[in-house]
Amino acid sequence: MSVLDAAYVLKTLPTALKQGKAKRQTYQGLSYLHYTDDFHHIPRGTAIFGETVIFGYPHIGRVLALKAGIQAHFKAPFWAEEKINGYNVRITKICDQVIALTRGGFICPFTTDRLVDLMPLKIFEEHPRQVVCAEVAGPENPYLESSPPFLREDVKLFVFDLMRQGQPGFLPYREKQARIERYGLPAVPLHGYFQVHETCALSALILKLHQEQREGLVFKEDSPRDHRAKYVTGASCIDDIQASSDNLLDLPPEYFINRLLRLALFVEEHALPSSPALKQALGSAFLDGLHTAMQGYRATHHVSKRFRCRLRKKENAELLLDYLKHASRHIQILPRELRQENGYWRLEFERVYPALTGMLGDLLAGKMVYD
Amino acid sequence: MSVLDAAYVLKTLPTALKQGKAKRQTYQGLSYLHYTDDFHHIPRGTAIFGETVIFGYPHIGRVLALKAGIQAHFKAPFWAEEKINGYNVRITKICDQVIALTRGGFICPFTTDRLVDLMPLKIFEEHPRQVVCAEVAGPENPYLESSPPFLREDVKLFVFDLMRQGQPGFLPYREKQARIERYGLPAVPLHGYFQVHETCALSALILKLHQEQREGLVFKEDSPRDHRAKYVTGASCIDDIQASSDNLLDLPPEYFINRLLRLALFVEEHALPSSPALKQALGSAFLDGLHTAMQGYRATHHVSKRFRCRLRKKENAELLLDYLKHASRHIQILPRELRQENGYWRLEFERVYPALTGMLGDLLAGKMVYD
Repeated sequence: MSVLDAAYVLKTLPTALKQGKAKRQTYQGLSYLHYTDDFHHIPRGTAIFGETVIFGYPHIGRVLALKAGIQAHFKAPFWAEEKINGYNVRITKICDQVIALTRGGFICPFTTDRLVDLMPLKIFEEHPRQVVCAEVAGPENPYLESSPPFLREDVKLFVFDLMRQGQPGFLPYREKQARIERYGLPAVPLHGYFQVHETCALSALILKLHQEQREGLVFKEDSPRDHRAKYVTGASCIDDIQASSDNLLDLPPEYFINRLLRLALFVEEHALPSSPALKQALGSAFLDGLHTAMQGYRATHHVSKRFRCRLRKKENAELLLDYLKHASRHIQILPRELRQENGYWRLEFERVYPALTGMLGDLLAGKMVYD
Repeated sequence: MSVLDAAYVLKTLPTALKQGKAKRQTYQGLSYLHYTDDFHHIPRGTAIFGETVIFGYPHIGRVLALKAGIQAHFKAPFWAEEKINGYNVRITKICDQVIALTRGGFICPFTTDRLVDLMPLKIFEEHPRQVVCAEVAGPENPYLESSPPFLREDVKLFVFDLMRQGQPGFLPYREKQARIERYGLPAVPLHGYFQVHETCALSALILKLHQEQREGLVFKEDSPRDHRAKYVTGASCIDDIQASSDNLLDLPPEYFINRLLRLALFVEEHALPSSPALKQALGSAFLDGLHTAMQGYRATHHVSKRFRCRLRKKENAELLLDYLKHASRHIQILPRELRQENGYWRLEFERVYPALTGMLGDLLAGKMVYD
């Protein structure tokens, strides 16, 4: 393969455009391109502004067995950072404007609008080519139905990596930490520095996070290869199911099977097999969402979920709705409210899940199925 | 369409054979053909012995909403028979031998071997062209992992319909009941005769069956069109999941999604949404099977389930193993024991689930996945 650098991305772009693997976009007069799929080793979400390449955030592998996974993949000590249940953004400065890119490489109108609330932006004055990689999470986000248990309103931002424009890799861990401190960036919680053999301590840590309903950990090796892996709690598997069970037919069924398998491996490794509370939580995760979906269907004739978020500028709320409508092909977006409140524009909209809506319509009317 | 009769089936056979929709089989020197798929209105499982056609058992539609389903589909009173959690057979006499056909139209070596234990065969002396449609169920059956809660050992047979060789339809209900009585056939429990508006009584009945962990009901309209529908209990959905969760990756994921949807509709219609016991049972259904699978994998390096059954003749045990090996393409059959006990041949074998075996092997070794 060629070396993965900005020149290679720019050279590959015409082919990617021709094959539909890259697309042109515009955001308030700013024109850019982004890779909509992994393509010739260039990660999906890589965005190009003129000659400036912002590499996509790379995939981090997941292990489903903690001890075996650590032992199989890590050769040096590693940091364990908390994995936050939110959406991934890369924040950088393009032509004097600081913008936030989604995982897919779109400029996110919501995050970009709220950046001044989410983090100090001074880092971009001294390091104008810095790319800040972070998770945005909270109950009032426009993308995800679930959020970390410790956030009660709005959204927060949690930095976990620094990149540079035009380069695919990350800043070394200690440099990243130094800059986070220096610029007062809000960071993901760091839960420790572990030796490869310290799996008992890790096991105790993940169980604590599980009990606190947190999502999990990302391990980052203290080595030049900067090897990484993620591992999630059983609670996060249940939370994913809970958040998605009213969307049972619009997600691929493997979504649920994967989480069940992760949960079962978690339960076995951490010796929780007989926990009635956990079993009840899993049962509730499936049934409560479907129950709400049915009640919703009976009341409104569709299955939907309401999302709320607040923005500084009205035009960004409208750009967000446009983006959501284009991004979710088969899921319908219904704007419900846009009003000023405490200096923000408060946006409410619904996502309508068409497959479950259609299926419940048929089944509640007594439709006969042949299976 | 042509009228569905024996002549039509025989006429269509060469095309079906050419297109791979019908196959030749032999059972102890008896040669026959059977339709392996629905084909030009001929149901899958239709079997042909020379000029004698045994029609496949037709599909019965399922409703997922009891009251709405009854009101949408029934125009006359109907009988409510219990649906038994077993496998469907058609029993008939071919050249002086009474045989049992599976749903797919194979001669079942197990059921055929055990017929003398399962039902009186006198009906075939007086009605040599009768076809007895029945469910065989019990903990010692070679096909299904679950069985009705009221059966503690071996298998039993439950007759629910009578057909005639060469004809696709059923004997009228009252004639069927008269023959069942006259020949002392073991029948499925009949739970009553209901008017279309009596949905409250039906609701109470299905809740009782649910509490007793029984499978459900089949409704048969008292009318010349003999309209039918089936409806299952929430308990049966949980039981299906429980019986199959150690087979999580070898079944299509929709298997689980469908049962979750059925269960959620049952819970909502019968006002059980806050039942902690039911939620815990659902959680257990998923987690206990997977836990057992993991323990099994750690002990034996494969995920399997052990089946036991008893037969009269040793050669039928061997024919059964051959049949199982051919019937389940990707699931491996491992014979474990065949010994004489109390006048029967006791057969034990294992079904190995390859997808979960392979996946657990990888994951428990710490494999990294990218999702």
